[in-house]
Amino acid sequence: MTHAAKKFASNAWYVAARAEELGEALLARSIIGLPVVLYRKADGSPCALLDACAHRLYPLSKGFREGDEIRCSYHGFKFDPLGQCTHIPSSEHIPEQAKVRSFPLVERYDMAWIWMGDPELADPSLIPDCHWLNTGNKVFYYVHLQADYQLLIENLLDFSHVPFVHADQQGHPELARVVPETEMAGRTVVSKRLMRGSITPSLWADVMGLRQGQPMDHDQVFIFNAPSSVCIRQKIWASGAEDAAYPFSTSHFMTPDGDGATHYWSWVSLEWNGVSPASLERMDVGAREVAQQDVVALQAQQRTQDQLRRHGERPVIVSVPFDRGSLLSRRAIASLLD
Amino acid sequence: MTHAAKKFASNAWYVAARAEELGEALLARSIIGLPVVLYRKADGSPCALLDACAHRLYPLSKGFREGDEIRCSYHGFKFDPLGQCTHIPSSEHIPEQAKVRSFPLVERYDMAWIWMGDPELADPSLIPDCHWLNTGNKVFYYVHLQADYQLLIENLLDFSHVPFVHADQQGHPELARVVPETEMAGRTVVSKRLMRGSITPSLWADVMGLRQGQPMDHDQVFIFNAPSSVCIRQKIWASGAEDAAYPFSTSHFMTPDGDGATHYWSWVSLEWNGVSPASLERMDVGAREVAQQDVVALQAQQRTQDQLRRHGERPVIVSVPFDRGSLLSRRAIASLLD
Amino acid sequence: MTHAAKKFASNAWYVAARAEELGEALLARSIIGLPVVLYRKADGSPCALLDACAHRLYPLSKGFREGDEIRCSYHGFKFDPLGQCTHIPSSEHIPEQAKVRSFPLVERYDMAWIWMGDPELADPSLIPDCHWLNTGNKVFYYVHLQADYQLLIENLLDFSHVPFVHADQQGHPELARVVPETEMAGRTVVSKRLMRGSITPSLWADVMGLRQGQPMDHDQVFIFNAPSSVCIRQKIWASGAEDAAYPFSTSHFMTPDGDGATHYWSWVSLEWNGVSPASLERMDVGAREVAQQDVVALQAQQRTQDQLRRHGERPVIVSVPFDRGSLLSRRAIASLLD
Repeated sequence: MTHAAKKFASNAWYVAARAEELGEALLARSIIGLPVVLYRKADGSPCALLDACAHRLYPLSKGFREGDEIRCSYHGFKFDPLGQCTHIPSSEHIPEQAKVRSFPLVERYDMAWIWMGDPELADPSLIPDCHWLNTGNKVFYYVHLQADYQLLIENLLDFSHVPFVHADQQGHPELARVVPETEMAGRTVVSKRLMRGSITPSLWADVMGLRQGQPMDHDQVFIFNAPSSVCIRQKIWASGAEDAAYPFSTSHFMTPDGDGATHYWSWVSLEWNGVSPASLERMDVGAREVAQQDVVALQAQQRTQDQLRRHGERPVIVSVPFDRGSLLSRRAIASLLD
Repeated sequence: MTHAAKKFASNAWYVAARAEELGEALLARSIIGLPVVLYRKADGSPCALLDACAHRLYPLSKGFREGDEIRCSYHGFKFDPLGQCTHIPSSEHIPEQAKVRSFPLVERYDMAWIWMGDPELADPSLIPDCHWLNTGNKVFYYVHLQADYQLLIENLLDFSHVPFVHADQQGHPELARVVPETEMAGRTVVSKRLMRGSITPSLWADVMGLRQGQPMDHDQVFIFNAPSSVCIRQKIWASGAEDAAYPFSTSHFMTPDGDGATHYWSWVSLEWNGVSPASLERMDVGAREVAQQDVVALQAQQRTQDQLRRHGERPVIVSVPFDRGSLLSRRAIASLLD
Repeated sequence: MTHAAKKFASNAWYVAARAEELGEALLARSIIGLPVVLYRKADGSPCALLDACAHRLYPLSKGFREGDEIRCSYHGFKFDPLGQCTHIPSSEHIPEQAKVRSFPLVERYDMAWIWMGDPELADPSLIPDCHWLNTGNKVFYYVHLQADYQLLIENLLDFSHVPFVHADQQGHPELARVVPETEMAGRTVVSKRLMRGSITPSLWADVMGLRQGQPMDHDQVFIFNAPSSVCIRQKIWASGAEDAAYPFSTSHFMTPDGDGATHYWSWVSLEWNGVSPASLERMDVGAREVAQQDVVALQAQQRTQDQLRRHGERPVIVSVPFDRGSLLSRRAIASLLD
């Protein structure tokens, strides 16, 4: 047995599904190149197998549940949640090596996290801390993005794009002016910045009940955990009214499907007291519109980069201080690949 | 001139078309990677040329017939049924090497068989014996399958899939229980088995006038001829009534198109006396439904295998006694490739 | 910085756009593999840049104009018409190497000509002479052809295809009979021929007011300029009435997009005195129909050649005297690639 996925870090946790996607039904999903079948056992715990029967590599996700086991619907081989073959209709003898690869799967923060590499190394404490997702008012969106996950990470770590890509809703001038202070520790990159005296954009005005165009302060902490999460803990307030600040977080999880596209799961948590249903609804609409703007931009960027690569054109590219987070994120990912 | 098709045995007969497809019109078809144009001469005999004019590789199938010859519709070069150029509008001199490759083509069993390799070796006695196709009541279907032909061969040589993939119409328990006895001789693999006291499934009940769910006996002989035919000669009867047995055969011919898909021609012959039109009609409907179930399964299997290969994942796969025919079929095909 | 486009001559002028396509708006187009953005400055002069921002290779054509400059719409980097970065919103320092590759672009004959190679070598006098395009009555068409540009060049240099592909409108027997006299000088190939006593085809009868089927004389001069233009200066008259000859030219410009397709710009100039609107209208309809016939033929030829190449089949191909122009055109193109 050889393991694929050299292109992506495999000894790492990736979000494989939103928790509510897992149940009795067999869910098929590509994760860093491999077909995976996911389901939930009778006791509620989730499990994940390579989506390929040990007999003739037929997708197990086309099979059916028998209790906690999966029966392949081609020749009827049956496998338990750890991938061990437990029944072969046409043979009393079950070969010892009749085993489908299984993947550690941990449920946390309303998501199922999968470990695609050596199971011995699958330490749940390596799942990034996103404790703020355990509580509060949240909106959620999922996008299947036709672009590499690193483009998405770099988008999220460099908010100087916001006044351009999301000018209509989230843009304010300081986003492209105040260079974050960035540090790297192990597989984590943290950037912080304080923006003072900017201008309240429409989305935050609507969600927080501020006045669009009025002076506003904005703090951000970006936390990248290699290879695949970017969380941004933020606070906004009308300038001079820090006591009435509105804390919120955006939490982004990106999992390569292995064929050039990316599963992209996102949450926005509104963390102040007394969030109104109208605020949450406005946030939901706004977050989806903003995500769609990023999708359009990143897919265009990917197509351009693909074309240049396909034709051997390698222009010099320049980086600026705002790119420090992105550059460190690449280094953190690269270190996981070694 | 170099010959392609290293990936597939070329010194072998493949079905290129159903006989009734051939006529005055020029038929274009891809066979183990090469474009071929097929037609029938005035005397009724069929012929086949590389579908590429010797001048600028324009498809001859876009040209037009002039008697038994083809006129290319780009610059008007004309070729006889053996591929020799016979006229060039713009030149009185015809270069000696102006010749399109021709392929031996033999009509047998209502099909046209093509030899893609060395014409010197094209011995018609190598066409598999399917004499039962010369007579009797038959239904026919053709499918262009998006899967490798070996997956189809292995499907047809391992009927333990029938209680799973075709449970509704053809499945009965003994199909996955009685291991066939299998022998290989040259490019032929033969498997036999006798199944006793199984349960009559709906399709055979309908076609043969038996009672669904009642005890039934079933004999099968599988004959694989490398590289591309699987015939299954069978007999079914209500248990205890062997005198009133219903003999039938299914004959399957698969030709790779060379780009990952397979031309799949199939016949079901009902070989008892007094087959009613209703039986034949039921068989026709049932055979197409069963074929469609295989198409769905094999295309899913192919996609999974492609994905694993693309990403370098090579799981251990196990074989069981039922796979002996498939494993020998691979060996027979491999020996043709050497 | 490395340059792509080894497959195509880069030190050469290619038509990048029709002049009227260029304006305030940013036009994105692939030229020999590279994404290019084209626009017209306030003073009316056209310019062209690599369509990839020097920061993160985002397509500049998705950005917006600020005067003569382009603002990238991802992070707001701004570039002047020579590709130099002039503003970075998030950084006061502009790195010296923040420069997008620019391409020489010259407007001539109602078209914009681009030089994809070394700008030092971009000598406008290398643009082929097509002075007849400066005056007269013309019709124009553009096609995005799914075939290699060399197939199109060879189509245009060998008019023996006309009685077959365009028999209905332009075909007359002498086109496939009179071998042109062909000479090569540098990057130019010139063929000439005089055809006497042929038969007037429908298109020329309609356009010139001649009688279809009556005797006609026809002179042609083919001028190929490597890598990418074929102009055919012609004259037709009713046999015996050379004084009343109808001069006309067809001018063809083909630019590879780099991914297997070709931008194809064409003009037909009717060069006699007193061309009627009806003649021009008939020419317009006829030219488009003829172009569409070539598109169908060339795309079929390309698919056949692709299939043979993909499967390693390399048939012997023969050339005849009519192919001399084509063979010399290949040599002229090859010499530009060295």
